Parts: sequence; structure tokens; C-alpha cells
Amino acid sequence: MHHIGASKTSLSSISTEALWRQSGRYSSNSELLRISDRRDSGFLLSPTHEEEITSLVAGMVHSYKDLPLRLYQVGRKYRDEKRPRGGLLRAKEFMMKDLYTFDSTPSAALETYDAVRAAYTAIFDALKLPYLVADADSGNMGGSLSHEYHFASPKGEDIIWSCNTCSYTANEELASKRPTPVDPTAQPRPLVFNGISTDHKTHIRIVVPEPASGGPPATWDNISHYINLHALKRALSHHNTALDTSISSAALTPLLAKPTSSPPIQIHDQALRSHPQALDITALHPASPCPTCPPHTGTLHPRKAIEVAHTFHLGTRYSAPLNALVSLPNSTRAPMHMGCHGIGISRIIGAVASLLSSSNGLAWPRVIAPFETIILAAPNVDAQAAEEVYDALSGEGGDVVLDDREGKSLGWKLKDADLIGYPIVVVLGRGWREGGMVEVQCRGLGVRRDVGVGDVSGVVGGLLERL
Amino acid sequence: MHHIGASKTSLSSISTEALWRQSGRYSSNSELLRISDRRDSGFLLSPTHEEEITSLVAGMVHSYKDLPLRLYQVGRKYRDEKRPRGGLLRAKEFMMKDLYTFDSTPSAALETYDAVRAAYTAIFDALKLPYLVADADSGNMGGSLSHEYHFASPKGEDIIWSCNTCSYTANEELASKRPTPVDPTAQPRPLVFNGISTDHKTHIRIVVPEPASGGPPATWDNISHYINLHALKRALSHHNTALDTSISSAALTPLLAKPTSSPPIQIHDQALRSHPQALDITALHPASPCPTCPPHTGTLHPRKAIEVAHTFHLGTRYSAPLNALVSLPNSTRAPMHMGCHGIGISRIIGAVASLLSSSNGLAWPRVIAPFETIILAAPNVDAQAAEEVYDALSGEGGDVVLDDREGKSLGWKLKDADLIGYPIVVVLGRGWREGGMVEVQCRGLGVRRDVGVGDVSGVVGGLLERL
Repeated sequence: MHHIGASKTSLSSISTEALWRQSGRYSSNSELLRISDRRDSGFLLSPTHEEEITSLVAGMVHSYKDLPLRLYQVGRKYRDEKRPRGGLLRAKEFMMKDLYTFDSTPSAALETYDAVRAAYTAIFDALKLPYLVADADSGNMGGSLSHEYHFASPKGEDIIWSCNTCSYTANEELASKRPTPVDPTAQPRPLVFNGISTDHKTHIRIVVPEPASGGPPATWDNISHYINLHALKRALSHHNTALDTSISSAALTPLLAKPTSSPPIQIHDQALRSHPQALDITALHPASPCPTCPPHTGTLHPRKAIEVAHTFHLGTRYSAPLNALVSLPNSTRAPMHMGCHGIGISRIIGAVASLLSSSNGLAWPRVIAPFETIILAAPNVDAQAAEEVYDALSGEGGDVVLDDREGKSLGWKLKDADLIGYPIVVVLGRGWREGGMVEVQCRGLGVRRDVGVGDVSGVVGGLLERL
Repeated sequence: MHHIGASKTSLSSISTEALWRQSGRYSSNSELLRISDRRDSGFLLSPTHEEEITSLVAGMVHSYKDLPLRLYQVGRKYRDEKRPRGGLLRAKEFMMKDLYTFDSTPSAALETYDAVRAAYTAIFDALKLPYLVADADSGNMGGSLSHEYHFASPKGEDIIWSCNTCSYTANEELASKRPTPVDPTAQPRPLVFNGISTDHKTHIRIVVPEPASGGPPATWDNISHYINLHALKRALSHHNTALDTSISSAALTPLLAKPTSSPPIQIHDQALRSHPQALDITALHPASPCPTCPPHTGTLHPRKAIEVAHTFHLGTRYSAPLNALVSLPNSTRAPMHMGCHGIGISRIIGAVASLLSSSNGLAWPRVIAPFETIILAAPNVDAQAAEEVYDALSGEGGDVVLDDREGKSLGWKLKDADLIGYPIVVVLGRGWREGGMVEVQCRGLGVRRDVGVGDVSGVVGGLLERL
């Protein structure tokens, strides 16, 4: 954050209903935790701080000359999770690094967006764990451009589609495939889904070809097996209706017996109606063709993934309703152009632990390990010897800790070190007593070797560079 | 905290009603902020963490061999303040340093208590601001021994009585005076207060001599002008009644017309009844005799003060109900002996700011200043010169910052530095251009002098030692 000129701040965890009503996010957010106090003040626990930081900056920054401004914090956030799970992976209280950026023009804001993405890439590169960067839907955050950072993991709750040939990667919500060429001679059987808009006014009828391969029952619950909801949203927007274009599986409800006042909106897949506006709205399946590769090259494949960071270009989504204006060189006043960017600190801890652990313990990446190296000595090894190794390592060996707890066996300390997950463990045991050698262990790289004291610093330093 | 072997931890801000019911503090605490979530889970925002830390330690520590254990954190706390005021002085969200100590015997716990008090004294000494340490009532925290740390300030909400001769200092709730010698020939007029216990069962009649000097109307609201409520509490406990001995002004309510079932408990001041159990229960007034000095020497005087820290010896107040037991050398199991100790971090910021500020700005004590020294240069001074002074100060001058913001006048920067409150300001202005001298300003010590570059490091270092 310092590399991109961001200043550290710390906002209250408490926000107000009033401010969230002003931004328009109060009613749409069902995950807000409310605080009940003696005066029924309408306080809530912030799940994110766009409203608060925009309101703060609106009161302090009045000229384009004070921009760009980049403010970040590391702190606790709160969300009324429907399904807290996986320990730190999804909890009602969690730790976030959140960055808010303010620029005076759209192009400056996009430059900021690119700078933040570069910083995030550097942060995730430093973890030395594979990660995915996916085009993403902005959801209820607002704005038009966003990217997600994911660790692929069977414990993940997101589905990321990526191409086996090019770099195309997108969240399920945004992923699309190359439209299937329509065979005008084919006469596919239609599969009809009847829905109703969230305001219960408009009947929506969606017709797609029945897949040749079959599938689960074509009920509303399984709609995403048959229909690409993101493509459906685009198809609905082509109708220029007043429907909420942020439609999702939750925004359409099954059409019950209740009659509706208007004739239904009909959305047909291109295979069923050769209307110029008819789009390919059928769902993605493994091996669907990549939308960016040339025809017949890359195919898309889904992976479960844990989202650990998200960048959003917000534009004036918050600065306009909250009156965060600056004067411009031409003396007019205009809303600032914002971005917000979060890294799920506590979720990364949980995700990394789940990716790097075994039944014996874990091995943290060097950059987030509490200490890089631990020194353990058997009880019958002279305490001073362990201290000499400590001194030898304190330079090259980075953050070193010496386990000098008394009354514990070497086996107990080894097990404890594996559970805690120090990247490197240096042992003064039998090899030390017999030949003055320490054993250097590195679970992450599968290394275990005996080293003389003179070499230990170089060996540990060399291992750390690879971690 | 590290000097007394305490380890840093960080607990969730969320606790549960269930745990607070188990400790018995749920019903008595009217300042708990509750969280309303989708499942009505009974979550609350912790105002303090005795319950959570005791429950955590109970699950991890099982033998006296693992004690003493000292755990601290620095984090946010929440309280449904009736009267939030004074910015950081009293807010619903505040920052605390809280330390929890665990020992296996009462004597070890008292040694811990003394070690914590010594550490707190060292912390407050380092601020180099006068402070008071008062014997204090343990209130709803439980336990039997506690001390408060205060800054005397007209903005304070506590009243601290201290002796003008000895070191006696006590909070109003606990302060007592040397009993006034009773003149058996005097026939003072009685002043009667009729009260009723909080359970509305017992009529309590309190009789004190009418003061010669008069005073406000002798109504229940003014009772503390006439009666020392702490002495009254002790007098009530002499009656061996089943009354709550934590009686305070809030625990007695005025006796209305409603009759009571039992004959009243009568509490007479010693001046009105020479019963051996009759105590001096009249209120303290300025110049009341000190209870610890020899007769006719020290007198007590009240000061308004801001409480900024509190130490509590808790005994088994929490470990017993929450089953935090350890096995002892004799193989029995017994509750741990605990202490809890807090420093109001955000309140200290507010209190120090109010004590050290003027309309021009403030001057932080060195140990809590964001930077110890700031270097400012006039716009027509070469940027490299300011950097040379920066380099010269970086060793002795402690934490140094150089204000290199462009487009701001020296006057603007000086004013900004005074507002922020850097202890020392080093200016490259006219003196620099005319004779190569920097001006060293120290608002806290009233110093402003011209110094050559070769001497600036020594001069600043010398000033910092006095701050």
C-alpha cells in the first residue's frame, strides 16, 4: 500500500443506517448486523467502509489539487453471514485490508485501478501460491469494472471458469462462452422456465433448447444448469424493460398460479428463434468453447475457488449520492471518481492453512509466517549452543525464534513447531552431539539435511529465497 | 507489557449473552450493546473481555505448571454510554489495552498485581504528566482490591480526594475521613433520610447531624452532600442484614408513601448515638481530616479527574463460575486467581490533548507523539539543505519527519505542525538563509533558539530527554 502512495487510516466499526440509506445500499443489504442501543440510534456494524470514507473525504477534500488520494486500513468487518463456515473462511467478524481511492477524472481513476491491480499482483506473487485473477461482477458494490483474486481449492464456494489455452478467467457470474453456431435445420425441443420479476409485476418466460445430454430436473432450483444467468441478464437488458438489470437467480422467483397484469416478456435462446437480438443464453458446461480464443481452440473448465481479494472501479457510485465533490481546473465542481479494493486478511490465513496443511501441521509462506525459522535443541544439548546457532542465523536467517521452553522433550517441540508451521526448523539433536551438525528441515520444499554451524546461515538463507 | 512477561493476543469483539449469564454479569450491566442478527443469536459487543479470556484459558490451561500466564491485547471495546461526551473521553467505541493475569495461588496473584502496578506506574511516568493513583471501588467488575490512575482535569467526571500532607488518594466512592471526635455535650439537630432497599422490602432510616454550615436542600438527590455513601455501606454491613452491600446512591430509592413490611433499619451517625457500632457516616468536605495522617495534620481536598487506567485483583470472581481450574501440586483442582488491568488508550489521547492544548495547537508527550521532531523549510530554502538536517537528526533526534509538501508556505506548515502537536519543530527559515542557523522550537518546554547544523542533533536530543 505504501508503494502506491496510500496512507493508513482507521475508521470506526460503527456506521449508521442514515448514511447507508443515503448511498442507497441500506435496503439491498441483508447481511448488515444492527446494533441495538438504549436510544434505537440506527447504528450498524460496517461490513465495508465506502459510505464512511466517502463521507469523511467529502468533508476534507475540496479541490482536484488534493487528488489523487489513496487511503487504506486493516481492521475488523462484520457481516450477518447466513452460513458461517470453515473457521476463518467465512465468519461474522473478519479482518480486511481495504483501500479507497479518489481521483478527479475517469482516466486518472483507471490509472489508479491499474496501479492497485499491480500492487495486488505483487502481494499475491509474494505468497508464492498459485492464484487466479477473474473478471468479476460488481454485485451490490456498484461500479462497472472489477476483478477477483482466488485460490483454487475444493473448499471454495466460488466457481471460476478458465480457458485451457488462453488467459481467460472469469467468475461463474460473469463467465460466458463462444456462442454455439446455430444449426438452422435442427429442431431442438424447447425447455421453458416461467419466472416473475422481483416486483411481482412482470411475467418472464425463458425458452432454451433441451440439451442432448440430459441433466437434473428442469426446475427453477436447477436453472443455472440450463441457463447462463449473466447472459440472461444481458438478454433482458436488450428488451429495454424497466426490469432491474442486476437480475440473478435470486431476483427471479418461480411463477406461481398468481396471474400477472402484463403479457410475458419472452426470452428465447438463439437456437430457438433467429431474431437478431436473440443471444446464446444456454449455460456453460465443462469444455464449452472459450469466448476469447479463435474457434475450435480453447475450452473452458470450472474450478472451485476461495475468493481472497477484490478490486472495484466505482466511478461516482458513492461520491455522487454522498456529495463528495471537488472543484476542477475549469472551476466546475464534480463528484470524485473512486475505487475500492479489499484483501481478506483472515480469509487468506484460513485459505493458506487449508492449502498447505497436512495431518502433521502446516508450513506458512515465508512472507506471512510469524517467524521464518525456529531453532530447537534436545534437552541434553547445551543451551549456549542453541544460542550460538541463533546468533549465526539472526542475520541471513530473517526472523528467528529459539524455543527455550523448559521441561519439554525434543519430540514435543518438533511436533509443536510443525503444528505452528514455521517455514524452516533447525534442530540440535543427535547430529549435534555426535558431529556438531544441525539438521535443517523445510517441509514446504521437502528438504531435510545436516549442516555444519558455519554453513547453516547460508543454507537457511538459500531455502528462504525459494519460499 | 513485555517487561512483565505478558503475551499479546486478540479476541473477537463479539461475545455472547450465554457467557455473560454464566459469569452473572449479564443482568447487572445496562451498558451492553447487543447485536441483532438474523437468528437472534444473543451476540453482544464486548465492553471488556474477562468472560471470553477466562473461557479461553479454561480450555487450554490445566496445571499450575503453566502459570503464571499473562495475556494482553490492544483493541476496540463497546459500551452503550448514556452520555457520550468529550470526543475520545467517553465514546460508545473506544480503544483499550487490557491485560488478564492467571496465577495458581492468592499470594502469587498479589505478586502479579504488584508487578502490573509497577508496570503501569512506569507507563504513566513515561508520559511525564502528573497523575493520581487512587484506591478504588471494584464496582461490578468484582474482586476486592483495585486502583485507578487519573489525570486531574476540570473536564474529568470522577472526584478524587487526596491529602495535602501524605500520599492518601481515593476515589469519591471509596474515600473516607478521620472520624470527627464526638462531643458528648453537643446536641446536634438530626437530619433524617428515609430510603428503601432496591428490592422494595426494607425501609432504611439514616440519621446524621445537621451540618453547622448549612448546604443544599436535604433531599434524596443531594444525599451525597450529607452522607458518605461508602461509609453508609459499611455501616449497613455491620447490621448483618441481607441487604446488598454494594449499596450506592442508586441502590436506595426515596421512600414514598408506600408502607413497608418490616420495621426500618436505623443507621445513626456516631454524633447522634454513642452505640459501639455507630460509625462516622457524614460526608467528606474540603479540609476534612485525612484518615491516615496523625490527628490535626493532613486534610483532604477534592479534584475533578479523568480516569485513564484501572487495575483489579479479581481472585476467583470469574474463574469459579466459568470453571477455569488448574491442578495444584497436592493434586487437587482449584480455580485460578485472576487479575484484570486496563488502560484507556483512546481516552488517554483525548485527556492528554485536553491537558496540553491551547488555541494554537498542542504538544504531545514524546512517548506518544506520532513523530518526535518535524523539519520545516521555507519555500526558498534548498530542498537538499532540509534533507541534510534530516540526516543529521535521524540518529539522536529519534523519529524525525520532513514536511516536503509542495506549494505550501512556511507559515502554513508551522501552523499545521502546531495543530498536529510534534514535540519539537526545526525550522530552516530566515536564520538559515542569513547565517546557516536552524531554529529549534519546543512548545512543551517553552524553548525557541537558533542553532548551527553541527549542534542541532545534540540540542534536539537534550530537549527530547526532558520531554
